[in-house]
Amino acid sequence: MSVVTNTIRNGVDTEKMFATLDLIKAQPELARFQFRATNRWIDASHNRSTIKGFYAAGGEDTTRSEEFQIDAGEPAILLGSDEGPNPAEYLLHALAACLTTSIVYVAAARKVELTSVESTLAGDMDVRGALGVDGEPRNGFERIGVAVRVTGNAPEEKLHEVVERGKQRSAVYDMVTNGVPVAVDVTTD
Amino acid sequence: MSVVTNTIRNGVDTEKMFATLDLIKAQPELARFQFRATNRWIDASHNRSTIKGFYAAGGEDTTRSEEFQIDAGEPAILLGSDEGPNPAEYLLHALAACLTTSIVYVAAARKVELTSVESTLAGDMDVRGALGVDGEPRNGFERIGVAVRVTGNAPEEKLHEVVERGKQRSAVYDMVTNGVPVAVDVTTD
Repeated sequence: MSVVTNTIRNGVDTEKMFATLDLIKAQPELARFQFRATNRWIDASHNRSTIKGFYAAGGEDTTRSEEFQIDAGEPAILLGSDEGPNPAEYLLHALAACLTTSIVYVAAARKVELTSVESTLAGDMDVRGALGVDGEPRNGFERIGVAVRVTGNAPEEKLHEVVERGKQRSAVYDMVTNGVPVAVDVTTD
Repeated sequence: MSVVTNTIRNGVDTEKMFATLDLIKAQPELARFQFRATNRWIDASHNRSTIKGFYAAGGEDTTRSEEFQIDAGEPAILLGSDEGPNPAEYLLHALAACLTTSIVYVAAARKVELTSVESTLAGDMDVRGALGVDGEPRNGFERIGVAVRVTGNAPEEKLHEVVERGKQRSAVYDMVTNGVPVAVDVTTD
C-alpha cells in the first residue's frame, strides 16, 4: 500500500522547496546568487531593460530560455509619453511582487492554503527633490504605504503570522527599507 | 525675421522642462506626487501588478489612458516557471531606468546631446537570508554594481559631470541606497 501525498501547495512544490533548503543548509556555498539587468536608452524618458542570465547554486543558469524585455517611461507631466510605467512605479511593483511571493512561499511551508493575496502600494514624493528645484526634499518616496489583503484556510492570527514572516524574509522589502550599497562605474568612450 | 530654436534635446522638450521647473518653484505645493501599484497573486511565484492612476500637481492624473500590467515570476531554481523577471531583477530594472532617465534629462538641461546611454547592473545575494536557512546573511542584495557607458557631443569631463548629477537627482538611486520607511497594513477578510 502506498500513500500518495500532494506536495503542491499554493502552486509551490513543497517537496522541492524543502529539498532545496536542505541542500543549501548542507552546502552554503550554493547560496551565492547574482541577478542582472542591462538597460539601453531609446529616446527621451523611454528606455528598455533586458533580463536573462543569472548566477545561482555554483554556476551560470542555463534553464531560462527567454529574455525578458521591460520598458520604462514617464507620463506627460514628467515630460514623457507613457512608454511604460516609470522607474519609481517599477520599484513599487518590485516591492509588491516580492512581498506576495514571500507570503505565498511561507504559507506553503506552513501548510496554509491561500485563496488570495492582493496589495495596493502608494509612494509619496515631493518632486522638487528629483527635479533639483529645492535641495530640501529627498529625491525618492518619503514613505511607502502597503495595504495587503490575504485570505486562506487558516485562522486570522495564523494568516497575520504568515504575512509577518513573509515581510521578514522578503529580499526587496529588506532592500527598500534598509538600502543597499550601490557602486557606479562610468565610461564615456 | 524670426529665429527658430529647436527646444527638443535628447527627445526632451527643454522649453516645457524649464517651464515646469519655474512653475514648481513658484508653487511648491504642485510638487506633491503619489505613485501607486496594485498587485494580485496568480499562482505560485506568479503575480501581476497593474499601474495606472497617480496624483500629481494638485490633482489626480487624467492623461494616462492605458493601464500597464507587469508580471513577476521566479526561475526554476527558485521554484517558479519564469513567468516574468523576479522581484529583485525588477528592482535592478527600476534603478537602471531611473539612472538612465535622470542622465538624459540632466544632459538635456545642460545642452549635451547624447548618442547612447547603456548600463549593466549586477546584484549579489546570499539566498540563505531570504530562504530563512540562516539568519546571518541579509535577505536582499549585499551590493549592486552599475557599469554605465554614456556617449555624446561633450568632452569626457562634462559627460562624467552629467552622470554624477543624474545620480544625485535619481529618485530610485536615492531610495535604493538610503532606504524608505515602509508601513504594511494587513487585512484577512
